[in-house]
Amino acid sequence: MQFELINTDGQARRGRLTFERGVIETPIFMPVGTVGSVKGLTPRDLTRWKKPILTDSGGFQVFSLAEKRKITEKGVTFSSPVNGDKVFLSPEVSMEIQKALDSDIAMIFDECTPYPATKNQVKDSMELSLRWAERSKNAFEDIKNPNALFGIVQGGMHEDLRKISADALIDMDFHGYAIGGLAVGESFDIRNEMTEIITPMLPQNKPRYLMGVGKPQDLVEGVKRGVDMFDCVMPTRNARNGSLWTNFGELKIRNARYKRDLKPLDDTCSCYTCQNFSRSYLHHLDKTREILGAQLNTIHNVHYYLNLMTEIREAISSHCFDDFYLNFYEKREIGIN
Amino acid sequence: MQFELINTDGQARRGRLTFERGVIETPIFMPVGTVGSVKGLTPRDLTRWKKPILTDSGGFQVFSLAEKRKITEKGVTFSSPVNGDKVFLSPEVSMEIQKALDSDIAMIFDECTPYPATKNQVKDSMELSLRWAERSKNAFEDIKNPNALFGIVQGGMHEDLRKISADALIDMDFHGYAIGGLAVGESFDIRNEMTEIITPMLPQNKPRYLMGVGKPQDLVEGVKRGVDMFDCVMPTRNARNGSLWTNFGELKIRNARYKRDLKPLDDTCSCYTCQNFSRSYLHHLDKTREILGAQLNTIHNVHYYLNLMTEIREAISSHCFDDFYLNFYEKREIGIN
Repeated sequence: MQFELINTDGQARRGRLTFERGVIETPIFMPVGTVGSVKGLTPRDLTRWKKPILTDSGGFQVFSLAEKRKITEKGVTFSSPVNGDKVFLSPEVSMEIQKALDSDIAMIFDECTPYPATKNQVKDSMELSLRWAERSKNAFEDIKNPNALFGIVQGGMHEDLRKISADALIDMDFHGYAIGGLAVGESFDIRNEMTEIITPMLPQNKPRYLMGVGKPQDLVEGVKRGVDMFDCVMPTRNARNGSLWTNFGELKIRNARYKRDLKPLDDTCSCYTCQNFSRSYLHHLDKTREILGAQLNTIHNVHYYLNLMTEIREAISSHCFDDFYLNFYEKREIGIN
Repeated sequence: MQFELINTDGQARRGRLTFERGVIETPIFMPVGTVGSVKGLTPRDLTRWKKPILTDSGGFQVFSLAEKRKITEKGVTFSSPVNGDKVFLSPEVSMEIQKALDSDIAMIFDECTPYPATKNQVKDSMELSLRWAERSKNAFEDIKNPNALFGIVQGGMHEDLRKISADALIDMDFHGYAIGGLAVGESFDIRNEMTEIITPMLPQNKPRYLMGVGKPQDLVEGVKRGVDMFDCVMPTRNARNGSLWTNFGELKIRNARYKRDLKPLDDTCSCYTCQNFSRSYLHHLDKTREILGAQLNTIHNVHYYLNLMTEIREAISSHCFDDFYLNFYEKREIGIN
């Protein structure tokens, strides 16, 4: 993997990741596949999706199991949510799996610190994650994985712990650096504040990935603070629940006001859904729980996210990210027609 | 609508329906849309689907509600399965709705006779359907619907009643004739026998439509007996339940034997699913109830049906339907590899 920083506009960065399997322009949003599919889409629906993939290590997924897991220095034991089987995951096992998946970017296996937590809990967790980061890197090299490996900065909402984590990971020398432990329930303002504190700790010449984030406004705020990569289940999950993003804000399609609304979701949107179907039809599909509703809503939301990132990249390239930023919020203030 | 009988091969008929919105080659299978969508597909998935549509009158749908309906000479009152509203449907109302939908082929509003039933019940029901057929035709003409209207032959499993129904409908002069009241629980042999009895009662120069049929072998048997058109929810419904048709028989994808089977569903099939995904992956999607499983299975089954009809048309055109027929069953005897 090669990373090229093409230009900056304030803290916002326009970059390019080059893999054997394709080129990714940054800032980028990565749609999330779980249980072997991007829910609601077929692979051919993934517009602008090139072949490169990134896999998470399992750290966050274990965290999401809450009570059903046991963490030791060696790794984590948990019951599979699919079939109840006992599963053991460790830095070494995770690196084996991610190599088998041949992902272009593998993530270190870490512990995602719960929020809120005491500072001591956060420190212990961050230190465990650093030891696991080192084991992840060693395992990644031992099995001769030719792809990229990213470190994940932890340390909760504490600047000093984030600094210790970032410095230690930079010493280990990863291909890129992720910000973990955000999007775990903290407020919009705290998330932005922490991002603003952490990105300057990271090397300029490596990609930066804000994990699990987020809503459209979170992406815009992340880019403004120097983030290059994002991922989140929101565009797909919310689509299945009838929550749709437009250039003029969020729209709940099951609201009765859309029952006879023959306008497209967003008349400025070029997606298949907006080009071919009305709000009224999408409202009907949602009410009757038709599979097609989940599909069409997901196509729209993912298109909205990818298009938002295209606009962000164009704005940075032409050094007018500030204008883009103001305009993004102004359009949302106009609201949905 | 124009119907042209291009050639015959035994009783099998190769024809063409020409509408303002497109041309349909027959014999044809029509995928079924319900509640406003063809379940599991987006409109762009409907390969070889041209613009013409046929709508059912509501007669069979009322029949499927069983206890929740009240039938009088005037029409049927029932509770909407969507929202519980009281709904009244009659020949006149049905014709209004089908005109509003602008369907290329409308169906008369009839009563679908339950099976089994006494001969007197069947006779009464068939006679009611004839009176409703006349009212349907009058209403269709009164509201100046420029499209086609098909009559529906009823009469249960009784040859004499079927003959009375067919003769009376032919006197009324419809654009085409459907066989109703089959695919209601009778055996494969009885269905074929009844079809064989009824098709010779119908005019050669009009299309014949066997309603609600069926499995692939039902289509082959129907064509052999002179049927031109079919519809059924089976390819879509069974797909969602993991029942998939191949040239070598039916395959239940959730069977454990497919867990690690990396072959396509049917290596002789050119559909998107067979070209891109393994049985193992489809098995996984079924087990985890992913939406993508329903989509990919439906794409395959509908493609299988449409492709089967293409092969049938080619066989009739080249006067080798008998060979096709034998080969169809022989391949299924080989079984799934």
